[in-house]
Amino acid sequence: MPDEMSPPRPAVALVTRELGSYFGERLSTNQTLRRQHAHTLTWGENQPPDAVVFVQSAQEVARVVTLCTEHGVPVIPYGTGTSLEGHVNAPFGGICIDLGQMNRVVAVHAEDLDCVVEPGVTRKALNDFLRDTGLFFPIDPGADASLGGMISTRASGTNAVRYGTMKDNVLSLEVVTPQGEIIRTARRAKKSSAGYDLTRLFVGAEGTLGVITQATLKLQGIPEAIAGGICPFPSVEAACNATILTIQSGIPVARIELLDALQVKAVNLHSKLGLTETPMLLLEFHGTEASVKEQSARFGEIAGELGGGPFSWTVKPEERSRLWQARHDAYWAGLALRPGAKAVATDVCVPISRLADCVTQTQADIERTGLIAPILGHVGDGNFHVTLLVDMDDPADIARVEGFLHRLVQRGLAMEGTCTGEHGIGQLKRKYMREEHDAGALALMRAIKTAFDPKGIMNPGKVLD
Amino acid sequence: MPDEMSPPRPAVALVTRELGSYFGERLSTNQTLRRQHAHTLTWGENQPPDAVVFVQSAQEVARVVTLCTEHGVPVIPYGTGTSLEGHVNAPFGGICIDLGQMNRVVAVHAEDLDCVVEPGVTRKALNDFLRDTGLFFPIDPGADASLGGMISTRASGTNAVRYGTMKDNVLSLEVVTPQGEIIRTARRAKKSSAGYDLTRLFVGAEGTLGVITQATLKLQGIPEAIAGGICPFPSVEAACNATILTIQSGIPVARIELLDALQVKAVNLHSKLGLTETPMLLLEFHGTEASVKEQSARFGEIAGELGGGPFSWTVKPEERSRLWQARHDAYWAGLALRPGAKAVATDVCVPISRLADCVTQTQADIERTGLIAPILGHVGDGNFHVTLLVDMDDPADIARVEGFLHRLVQRGLAMEGTCTGEHGIGQLKRKYMREEHDAGALALMRAIKTAFDPKGIMNPGKVLD
Repeated sequence: MPDEMSPPRPAVALVTRELGSYFGERLSTNQTLRRQHAHTLTWGENQPPDAVVFVQSAQEVARVVTLCTEHGVPVIPYGTGTSLEGHVNAPFGGICIDLGQMNRVVAVHAEDLDCVVEPGVTRKALNDFLRDTGLFFPIDPGADASLGGMISTRASGTNAVRYGTMKDNVLSLEVVTPQGEIIRTARRAKKSSAGYDLTRLFVGAEGTLGVITQATLKLQGIPEAIAGGICPFPSVEAACNATILTIQSGIPVARIELLDALQVKAVNLHSKLGLTETPMLLLEFHGTEASVKEQSARFGEIAGELGGGPFSWTVKPEERSRLWQARHDAYWAGLALRPGAKAVATDVCVPISRLADCVTQTQADIERTGLIAPILGHVGDGNFHVTLLVDMDDPADIARVEGFLHRLVQRGLAMEGTCTGEHGIGQLKRKYMREEHDAGALALMRAIKTAFDPKGIMNPGKVLD
Repeated sequence: MPDEMSPPRPAVALVTRELGSYFGERLSTNQTLRRQHAHTLTWGENQPPDAVVFVQSAQEVARVVTLCTEHGVPVIPYGTGTSLEGHVNAPFGGICIDLGQMNRVVAVHAEDLDCVVEPGVTRKALNDFLRDTGLFFPIDPGADASLGGMISTRASGTNAVRYGTMKDNVLSLEVVTPQGEIIRTARRAKKSSAGYDLTRLFVGAEGTLGVITQATLKLQGIPEAIAGGICPFPSVEAACNATILTIQSGIPVARIELLDALQVKAVNLHSKLGLTETPMLLLEFHGTEASVKEQSARFGEIAGELGGGPFSWTVKPEERSRLWQARHDAYWAGLALRPGAKAVATDVCVPISRLADCVTQTQADIERTGLIAPILGHVGDGNFHVTLLVDMDDPADIARVEGFLHRLVQRGLAMEGTCTGEHGIGQLKRKYMREEHDAGALALMRAIKTAFDPKGIMNPGKVLD
């Protein structure tokens, strides 16, 4: 939907009026509220929708989408607004569908290790709900995002090395198509070979192919024992090599997180931890008491062989929290490195054999560019984040950061990596789609978009250009 | 591509002639060869292609597809021909692309735990190739299928409960589109949030959206220790409940296979094993020596609580093979139950909580219908196979089996299951797509097919009707 194709104002006014007469106070055109629904978490311009509607059922979503399709008005699905690349902005106006009130856990099937949720349930709310069942949902992006949003961005987090990403943890979806039809992508069986994988097509589509109104998710048994610990390394390379060896050895590590020296320094400053300011790996192992002890001991040996250590670890929950404090405080500690600055988070992901190179080159770039930007990585997946501390009032600072972000993506792509491992494309990384994918692959993505949404009303201006 | 839309004979003749002038002896119109390439492994009619071409590169595939698209001639990709639902039949004639000569392992990236293969590499050939690397590829359907075929049918097998299915083990694909363009679906990073999941769209598409010419696959470290064993149960229900409890407890079982009493009887007859003729679970655990022993012991406790046992297990390779002999011999033993009969294998998959019901009702149906049909299940996934021993010369027997197959699918679907967990739709299960998927979901699948392949030349008459 190019700029000149923004819907005519009378169409928007008509749709807003009609929705208002149905939704009453659940439709709002309040400017503050509209702007809140379009925040970008970066320096990206705030582009508010024309109205926000708070839906409570798939039928209501279908009603909104049907009306919008009829009049060519954009639809922007909204969960918690914690996406990082401008996913919820409304560059062509339109109707923002806030799914936050669709927050019921519809069913938990403990024997099948699955549950059925509405899209507005957040990951923490789901795990609170599950507390007494002995089960949990493992995917944990930083924010307490909605599950619908996590599906739409193909989110992951610290546990992905063990439990996979959202792609691996959705059994089935209910979706309202751009035609306003309510469909189901698959049945509840754990696997199927019956037809095209519509589920995986909606996972990561960022609301550009339809609105997710229900999801059937895989659950995991809460491990009997958890060991956690922290291990310093002489270099990023040694830490990355330890990660590779750990995974090659078949140690089923549940979390393996890298903090670079600057991130460790930040945590020391912020939380008075007194850690050695070198790269650190933080690890977690899930299993029986005996197996997590064995895994921890084996990791300690690997770390030692690579010049790292000592690996301090424990199976006691309180001590584990203490050892992991550096990770828990990382975000706020980072902010403290530059008071008054805003933190802009970005991510790339490369084959793990290239990770040390990619991180080291990125550190040199940060140094050269004069930025303050700690690095934190889900290194088991080859995925890392740079948290850029930006003075939003200084155009020169923003320009420096933009240049850095561009080089970071180029570096990742040159190493057979992706421009985003878990944040998504949104508005801000669209320009890299042509570099990441060949023209033929992009043509297929566009063909899917056109086939599903010929009028281009679903979250226009995102993913594809 | 409805019947009346079979390509005109002159078009076929022209394409065959043009391909012949390029491929020389690598193009064949020999009738025996053509029929071999269209076998169905059932009573389904053999529908041979007009010609078979043995390709050696993606460029050659692109050449064939481009020419066929231009003249509206069907293209049928072929790996080893071990698919079970008529996937390689050519109901409208056309050109069969035999990918068997594209059988190079292009690269092994041991640090990244991935490899790049041509589609004609079989799973056993890949594991032979990997032998000295300490790595293996875990997906193991019964046959020594080609990896391209396994991707196309979204295959799995005994290891899926631990390592997932083909859907979970493909990082990226090179595909020749119906327009004859060579595209890549993703980069080599372990995860990505950059755009629509084209990879998963081609996994399970059964060659109806393009021809896979290269695949980047995940590998696993060969476990340090493997424990294997066999455990009798008083009933299918007890065996299924033990499976559920095992998985809920977080025991990372690598294989958990159910043999029903008839299957055990068959093995006794065939291999003189002297096993108690009750339902049996066969299990395998992967890990360190200590952890597989712990897992085995814990499973033994669970089995005991449910009236099963004794669980005989070992970590010694030769003894493990002996204990697993019942599973290894299952197929041939089944055949021996009815000498001269042909074995027709089918599969359904249901949520695991419904598995005991589904198997028990299916056994009663087999009994009532007067069939001889042992059952064998990948029970950790809720997936099971019925091996029907059919007298192919007796239309009444075939009719009985067809009736049974229909009821089996209905039963699986009524339990929120799928009409196929791992064999695929092919020709023979197309009629169930309307029952498994709602009209809106099917419309989206058709929209994808039309968008990718507007002339409908790619493996017509499969998956969708």
